[in-house]
Amino acid sequence: MATDTAAPADPAPEPPETVEEAPPAPRPTPPGGDDKFPVPQVDVAALTALLDGRYADVRNLVRTNLAAYASILEEQETLDRAAFRERVKDVVLEMAATGQTGMGFPEEYGGGGDVGASFAAFETLAFGDLSVLVKVGVQFGLFGGAILQLGTKRHHDAYLADLITGQLMGCFAMTETGHGSNVQALGTVATYDADAGEFVITTTEPGANKDYIGNAAAHAEVAVVFAQLEVAGEGHGVHAFVVPIRRDGEPAEGVRIEDDGLKMGLNGVDNGKLWFDHVRVPREALLNRFADVSEDGTYHSDIENPGRRFFTMLGTLVQGRVCVGGGGINASKVALAIAIRYALRRRQFEATSETEEDLLLDYGQHQRRLFPLLASTYALHFAQEVVAGQCHDVFSGNQTAEKFRRELESRAAGTKALGTWHATRTIQECREACGGAGYLAVNRFAALKADTDVFTTFEGDNTVLLQLVAKGLLTDYAGEFEEMDQLGMVRFVAGLAVETVVERTSVHKLFERVRDLLPGGDRWDQEAGVLDSDYQLAMLRFREEHMLAGVARRLKRGIDAGMNPGEVFSRVQDHVIHAARAHTERLVLEAFVDKVRGMPEGDDKVVLGLLCDLHALSLIEADRAWFMEHGRLTVVRSKEISRRIGSLCRRIRPVARELVDAFGVPEEMLRSPDLIS
Amino acid sequence: MATDTAAPADPAPEPPETVEEAPPAPRPTPPGGDDKFPVPQVDVAALTALLDGRYADVRNLVRTNLAAYASILEEQETLDRAAFRERVKDVVLEMAATGQTGMGFPEEYGGGGDVGASFAAFETLAFGDLSVLVKVGVQFGLFGGAILQLGTKRHHDAYLADLITGQLMGCFAMTETGHGSNVQALGTVATYDADAGEFVITTTEPGANKDYIGNAAAHAEVAVVFAQLEVAGEGHGVHAFVVPIRRDGEPAEGVRIEDDGLKMGLNGVDNGKLWFDHVRVPREALLNRFADVSEDGTYHSDIENPGRRFFTMLGTLVQGRVCVGGGGINASKVALAIAIRYALRRRQFEATSETEEDLLLDYGQHQRRLFPLLASTYALHFAQEVVAGQCHDVFSGNQTAEKFRRELESRAAGTKALGTWHATRTIQECREACGGAGYLAVNRFAALKADTDVFTTFEGDNTVLLQLVAKGLLTDYAGEFEEMDQLGMVRFVAGLAVETVVERTSVHKLFERVRDLLPGGDRWDQEAGVLDSDYQLAMLRFREEHMLAGVARRLKRGIDAGMNPGEVFSRVQDHVIHAARAHTERLVLEAFVDKVRGMPEGDDKVVLGLLCDLHALSLIEADRAWFMEHGRLTVVRSKEISRRIGSLCRRIRPVARELVDAFGVPEEMLRSPDLIS
Repeated sequence: MATDTAAPADPAPEPPETVEEAPPAPRPTPPGGDDKFPVPQVDVAALTALLDGRYADVRNLVRTNLAAYASILEEQETLDRAAFRERVKDVVLEMAATGQTGMGFPEEYGGGGDVGASFAAFETLAFGDLSVLVKVGVQFGLFGGAILQLGTKRHHDAYLADLITGQLMGCFAMTETGHGSNVQALGTVATYDADAGEFVITTTEPGANKDYIGNAAAHAEVAVVFAQLEVAGEGHGVHAFVVPIRRDGEPAEGVRIEDDGLKMGLNGVDNGKLWFDHVRVPREALLNRFADVSEDGTYHSDIENPGRRFFTMLGTLVQGRVCVGGGGINASKVALAIAIRYALRRRQFEATSETEEDLLLDYGQHQRRLFPLLASTYALHFAQEVVAGQCHDVFSGNQTAEKFRRELESRAAGTKALGTWHATRTIQECREACGGAGYLAVNRFAALKADTDVFTTFEGDNTVLLQLVAKGLLTDYAGEFEEMDQLGMVRFVAGLAVETVVERTSVHKLFERVRDLLPGGDRWDQEAGVLDSDYQLAMLRFREEHMLAGVARRLKRGIDAGMNPGEVFSRVQDHVIHAARAHTERLVLEAFVDKVRGMPEGDDKVVLGLLCDLHALSLIEADRAWFMEHGRLTVVRSKEISRRIGSLCRRIRPVARELVDAFGVPEEMLRSPDLIS
Repeated sequence: MATDTAAPADPAPEPPETVEEAPPAPRPTPPGGDDKFPVPQVDVAALTALLDGRYADVRNLVRTNLAAYASILEEQETLDRAAFRERVKDVVLEMAATGQTGMGFPEEYGGGGDVGASFAAFETLAFGDLSVLVKVGVQFGLFGGAILQLGTKRHHDAYLADLITGQLMGCFAMTETGHGSNVQALGTVATYDADAGEFVITTTEPGANKDYIGNAAAHAEVAVVFAQLEVAGEGHGVHAFVVPIRRDGEPAEGVRIEDDGLKMGLNGVDNGKLWFDHVRVPREALLNRFADVSEDGTYHSDIENPGRRFFTMLGTLVQGRVCVGGGGINASKVALAIAIRYALRRRQFEATSETEEDLLLDYGQHQRRLFPLLASTYALHFAQEVVAGQCHDVFSGNQTAEKFRRELESRAAGTKALGTWHATRTIQECREACGGAGYLAVNRFAALKADTDVFTTFEGDNTVLLQLVAKGLLTDYAGEFEEMDQLGMVRFVAGLAVETVVERTSVHKLFERVRDLLPGGDRWDQEAGVLDSDYQLAMLRFREEHMLAGVARRLKRGIDAGMNPGEVFSRVQDHVIHAARAHTERLVLEAFVDKVRGMPEGDDKVVLGLLCDLHALSLIEADRAWFMEHGRLTVVRSKEISRRIGSLCRRIRPVARELVDAFGVPEEMLRSPDLIS
């Protein structure tokens, strides 16, 4: 090679084509596919059953409901904002009447008594109009969830039956204009007036108004309001109160409501701002599961530490994060189903023949665009199944250990972040893959893009959530981890011996396990096959542990050098986020590998195995620089991984249609007459 | 380190902190900034003058016009679609009256006679509502440009004066539903009827209707229609005709018009579909600059080769690509101005102090999110200045060499692709960086996102454009390159000796030059400073040449092995795209480096130097795996680059506001009362 005369030798000369990659002879390969392997026969129904899992009935009920209200996809365009809000509300109420939205509530109040079913129902709803989804989330998840989780029997008796039917609409007033992610610092105050036996709720300063509150601008009659509780001049931190905000359609006395106005998407949800001017509510309005104020003004909580008390209350929000993550993942399925079906009918340019243009999906670049996203969608689906299952266990009382709950919160945060970023990226890529037609509103992407965009922000900004994940890992979910702020976390970690952190991350055990599992011993990373799931998992686990130990080392070094802890944190922050992402990616891959391993032998297992490999290798490829920098990937192997990805894409090509059909997105929800019909 | 006991030694132990990185003592560092360097004093006006370049007056005229019609940003939300379309049209006509939109037309018809000025005006318009921008592009760029470039004096006399004022509205009817990017295959036919001396225009088959045509649904009276010309039974390929499509607001006889309906964005532009049923136009309707049909039905063209003729006609479209690329780059400036100003007033969490929350922009991760995008925006701005200048030279007759024109087409295609993908990415990142407030329509991102989304698709799908770039590079812009389809390109390259391609890419000369320039001789890549622009450019150039040679080798190998050329292309396609991207990234960096080198010494030069380094190192970091795989980056150096990026971000932090102010986005265009006021 001419370049070699002047340049240092290329450390990775193109290796000879492997047998698998050798061009077949004598007959020409069909474009895009790979005829060296038999095309597996995918049983779409069986795959759908696998994806639907134990809640197939619930998911099918939602599919039926979505199809029944399919006109909402058009109404989103044709109705004006006010009318569309009413329409969304009506659809939500009618769906509620089928039991679809109340599955997580106790049966004695008319609910389904199955938390896990509520996740399955919510996720599936993401196939349809997303204003409906978010309205359901606001009413039954946030508002209903707060009453159920933070309230006690008196609140359950007063509100649950009516809110489950939607007869009582409510909202969840936590976020303030001035305090988005930092809820602990919010500025609304609830002062106990012992003489009257009432709390007085007040917006104390500019920016302390509630903001972006779904259901607030038009429909909610009551709000669960988060405010700083003050009793007899003493502050006790953030607590939640049930506050009537609207009567006969008009704001209640002392309450000011403003509409948040037009949004990028989700315009069927009435988001608004709320101000409180000395609004009085009875003592019983305090949602008192974790703390109470007696009539005479004595504050009591079983959780003495205010920070921990706050995070215990906040912990009940984990359900919302589980829901949003699942919503993002399922919205991605809609985009992929459209883009892949389009690529199977759209032809563009003659590439293999002089006379007929080629299908888009037969272009290598098009496969490379879409199939890794398809594989990740499967991976995230199964990861979501795990987190939803764990959440079910915690909220059904099957798992009571504190540490299990903390780990769930971390896993939910990470899955929500990755699932919603995945949605933004996938929907964008699918839109571009559908060209100009993808830009027309009738073809679904306009709403999908605009509506899902805020998923990366609400129920916790993704960046903030990943910091939460990292904090848990660095502190090993210590009892005090939840209440640590960033300063506290930096100091905590800096106070540990580095060995402690490294020990915690079990890097020793990992390497022992890897040596036992993989053929290469200490050279496992060079000798195992790249399609060996144990190799793939070991790579992700190595990265995670190494990154975490690196963050701990950097924090310590900064503090030891006398830097301001905030400055230390700022400089380490991108490593913190990367470590959290690496951790979550490992959890996601584990979920996918476990699922595939548990499948009965057969073609479906073969196909999901291909997808799982594609997902794993795409993750390693995306971060291959890191693996090379850290001595875990040779140049030859890195290039092999990239080639394998191309080869996996060609093997997936013949079953791509079946793989999106298996998602079971109702045909009515795909709409897109220009793209798929 | 504990991990090392079980794992192979980390090849890159954390090097000791360099002097530059050492924590300062004794006083604490201000958060986010870097006080080891004096903060440069940025002269915002001088920087604006530098960015505005020779067309400062033109840009200021547009700024004034934008401010005068600032209400359009709100009207985009409040008016219904039909009313908004009319409003956009009115604004376009009123702007036209100031001379803003006609700058590229000859003075004798009322134009400004300066092609370069028309790019500057168009780009600057991207600070405002983008329906206005696109409507201007459709009327004056596509429609007006086709009349000017493809027509002759009779067409100029008949149409130019009226279209420059907007009195005559027209559209550019090229794209068909069934043929998006593959224009050569379109299905509309124009048959010459020698007896009548007329062309008969017909939509011959389903999918051959024109689609997504801006101005077609409501306002255009005439269309420039691209159709397959048939004379006396013989086909001559695609030609353009002026066809009246609407009279007194009603479709002309034989013309069917349908509205494309609601779109994701740009709803102030009336896109539509057109069908032609034996529509007759006089012989003179043929835009006959490159080919003509005589009265008796004799076809004549000075360009004998039909493929080259087609691409010569298409070449006039290059102006549109230059415009769209510039539009994307300038829309990014709006997003960055908002996000950076928001991050300078928004506080979130206590990180450096127990009592006050920190500014978002003082978080390392936030700087890492926004500053590389800011740097790339500057880089793309200067690259756009180069391509617009070259385009000016070609269309003003200053440059007449065929090869120069072909290289311009390639550069315009690459810059359009990178500039518009940059816009999509930057606007998304900025939206997320503004949290929930970024989701409210009042804060600008809703429109910015929705309106710019299609930029990656129109005026050439970005993926297709990058293939065009690669084709030019691989064939060295051979005379026949334009007319080659993918099959032809594969065969052409496969027919060359590999050495030919490698020789062409001047890799020898490159290495000689690098050896002379950089201190390290053959080890230049290890011994030059990472902040040396020559090093950065050499890295990008090495990558480009190496990738191109690799594509050529792969194409040859596939063909030599007897594979179908289409299959070979499909498998190599991702390498093709990467090579084209690498080439364009090198051109962009060169433009930035050249600009900085030409600045007078002073603080502004220092600051742009920081941005230029940040841009270059971010490019290398993003592809550091490739550089490691190809022996041009050691692990130690790779990590050094990542650390330098953090350090550059901290140095840019104190002047971030000035750097976005220098864009000169009119304050009215930022809107965003919740974010920046």
